[in-house]
Amino acid sequence: MASTNLPLDADRLWGDVMALAEITDPERPYTRRSFSPLFLEGRAWLAKRFADAGLAVRIDTAGNLIGRLEGTDPSLGVIAVGSHSDTVPSGGRFDGIAGLATGLEVVRSLRDASVRLGHPIEIIDFLAEEPSEYGLSCIGSRGMVGALDAGMLELTEPGGEKLCEALRRVGADPDRLAAARRHDIKAFLELHIEQGIVLESQSLDVGVVTSIVGIRRIEIVFEGAADHAGTTPMTLRHDALVAAANTVAAVRRIAEQLAAEGPDYFVATVGILSVEPGASNVVPGRCRLVIDARTTNSALTRRFVEALERDSAAFAAAAHVKRTPLVTLSDAPPVACDPVLRAALRRASQELGLGETDLASGAGHDAAFLSRICPSAMIFVPCRNGKSHAPEEWADQEAIARGAAVVLQAVKSLDQSCAA
Amino acid sequence: MASTNLPLDADRLWGDVMALAEITDPERPYTRRSFSPLFLEGRAWLAKRFADAGLAVRIDTAGNLIGRLEGTDPSLGVIAVGSHSDTVPSGGRFDGIAGLATGLEVVRSLRDASVRLGHPIEIIDFLAEEPSEYGLSCIGSRGMVGALDAGMLELTEPGGEKLCEALRRVGADPDRLAAARRHDIKAFLELHIEQGIVLESQSLDVGVVTSIVGIRRIEIVFEGAADHAGTTPMTLRHDALVAAANTVAAVRRIAEQLAAEGPDYFVATVGILSVEPGASNVVPGRCRLVIDARTTNSALTRRFVEALERDSAAFAAAAHVKRTPLVTLSDAPPVACDPVLRAALRRASQELGLGETDLASGAGHDAAFLSRICPSAMIFVPCRNGKSHAPEEWADQEAIARGAAVVLQAVKSLDQSCAA
Repeated sequence: MASTNLPLDADRLWGDVMALAEITDPERPYTRRSFSPLFLEGRAWLAKRFADAGLAVRIDTAGNLIGRLEGTDPSLGVIAVGSHSDTVPSGGRFDGIAGLATGLEVVRSLRDASVRLGHPIEIIDFLAEEPSEYGLSCIGSRGMVGALDAGMLELTEPGGEKLCEALRRVGADPDRLAAARRHDIKAFLELHIEQGIVLESQSLDVGVVTSIVGIRRIEIVFEGAADHAGTTPMTLRHDALVAAANTVAAVRRIAEQLAAEGPDYFVATVGILSVEPGASNVVPGRCRLVIDARTTNSALTRRFVEALERDSAAFAAAAHVKRTPLVTLSDAPPVACDPVLRAALRRASQELGLGETDLASGAGHDAAFLSRICPSAMIFVPCRNGKSHAPEEWADQEAIARGAAVVLQAVKSLDQSCAA
Repeated sequence: MASTNLPLDADRLWGDVMALAEITDPERPYTRRSFSPLFLEGRAWLAKRFADAGLAVRIDTAGNLIGRLEGTDPSLGVIAVGSHSDTVPSGGRFDGIAGLATGLEVVRSLRDASVRLGHPIEIIDFLAEEPSEYGLSCIGSRGMVGALDAGMLELTEPGGEKLCEALRRVGADPDRLAAARRHDIKAFLELHIEQGIVLESQSLDVGVVTSIVGIRRIEIVFEGAADHAGTTPMTLRHDALVAAANTVAAVRRIAEQLAAEGPDYFVATVGILSVEPGASNVVPGRCRLVIDARTTNSALTRRFVEALERDSAAFAAAAHVKRTPLVTLSDAPPVACDPVLRAALRRASQELGLGETDLASGAGHDAAFLSRICPSAMIFVPCRNGKSHAPEEWADQEAIARGAAVVLQAVKSLDQSCAA
């Protein structure tokens, strides 16, 4: 670990993180679901903090909360720093929040040091980065890059509200989404907790994200026969779970092989497996699996799916069950972070004497959408045991402050280099 | 298939099966759950049919509905024929019912032929053979053999009613259970649909049950870590589902090997597998399996559990997860049917010109409990596609009539031989 003599106010930064965390459903800390009253309460608090920091505050037509500080040179594009203030149910205090507090602290530190940038700087609280009640994530960043389409606006949450109605409720204007689309952002930077254990296990301060994984979700259903578990001999069974279990084992085996090849990142997980009818005395008649495959190199996912197709068909045949065709539930391509911004973040880390490494992001982030319209990059800071999306999610005050200092330093250097 | 010239009234027998089936929850045919108002309605109908057939009707202190016809020789014990009138939810029209209608038709046919037995004959509708809302099956037959203990009487259904209260509600007397225990039954015979496909696939009329499987239910829990499915590399996972899936495959493999050894019957099934938290983007942190192993030879279950212990521990270690000790949820030993009664049933089949075979019962039955207090045996009749515990459960009128004729013939011959 490195010096604590950072060019920002670590206590003030930490205070913001803790204050926003307090705005939670008290029954399920830490919960501030997008579009909820608590979410709006959090945003009102954030808007006040933005204004206190001297920022002009607005909500764009896609529902993103934006604080803007003008630069000295009106001809230059925006340097943006952002993340999100919504949480998963029973989530943590840092996922998203740490990035927003970093943006605030960057602006305040510049002001404290009487540094005026040439570029305007914006802090963006993207709407609904986490999977929302509408079944969609990254709603605000999709809107900002023109990827929030009419079909998505019709998505309906369990209570019956449509996404377009919810957008209006939080100050967006779904009829004028095109106005949210940006062409003036020159650089986007996001700080986030790692949600993994690479930095912690190597005692490093900063992970400079090389790329954000592409995520493909695949559904497989095996259909057998729900026969009596006592009267159906082993040789006469059509056991859907046997085929599904062999497929789970194959997903693990194939993923381990692809990950071991290196240098690309590859992981695959079966997180959902349902068994019907699910009674101890009935042979499983139907099993549904959802497979989540993530990689920095789409070629690996193609090879994974090929192997999965072949193996799962063989397991179905062996178990005398039917396998439905593989269904792609969603498929987002991997996104490489901008090399110029990555270099600036790496250099900033080194100038601050911090330990850094290149790292792939295994999680999706708003930065992946932003990269469609502007150079984008991220840094990760270590979090305890890699835990995230849970109340025990934790990042040390010093860890966040170091990361924020890297962002501050990178913003300053980008302001110089891009203006030159 | 054999002659339809049977010494009973196949239409009358079929009419009873269909009439009792009509007493069902109309929303979920065919449902007549033990202890429910519909169950009591079914029993009232049965009691009337018993009385119409000239039987003296009573409910014993364990809640069994019994119809009795006295014999000519007061010194002889009872020949009993029985089964059950309760169903699983959305069950069938024949499971249990076919055996009760058979008992009724046996008595009526004897009367029609003016045959008076030396032995008294009883038709027994055992209470709650199917798994009840109290988590217990074979409640009436347990009571009749002294196996319904005080702890069971305290079992509580989801609505809060205790089993002892429910017993009182259906006419039993849980404070005087000892009075239900029988020492006077000389032979117990039960006809049941096969719930399998052996008879149908071999075009046979009758399966003479050699033994009723023992059933052991085993719970295994794997505990790993519910890490982020994106940010946790394959090498750092503690995936409970991977260990569970390998265990499912092992259960299948071990069971196939034991079943292939012959001549004993062995089957094992994983019918319940739950995954927590069960989200596509979270590595499974906890998995629970329930394994159902059934055999006619307890030594095979011992070998099965040994292999399961070894393999599941190895899978847990390989997946870096914890495996809890195997929990035996229930364990009933296999029961051999009485050889004298089996011979009588086989001989009766042959005398009627029917195709018969020896067969193990893969399902549990009241006869397994009755065997603790008296010689007991069963016959199976074919059912379509082996389907049972489902609305499509089906047995042909002729198939049931042939089986009932076998029981009638066996009752007559036992009356002669036992009295001799």
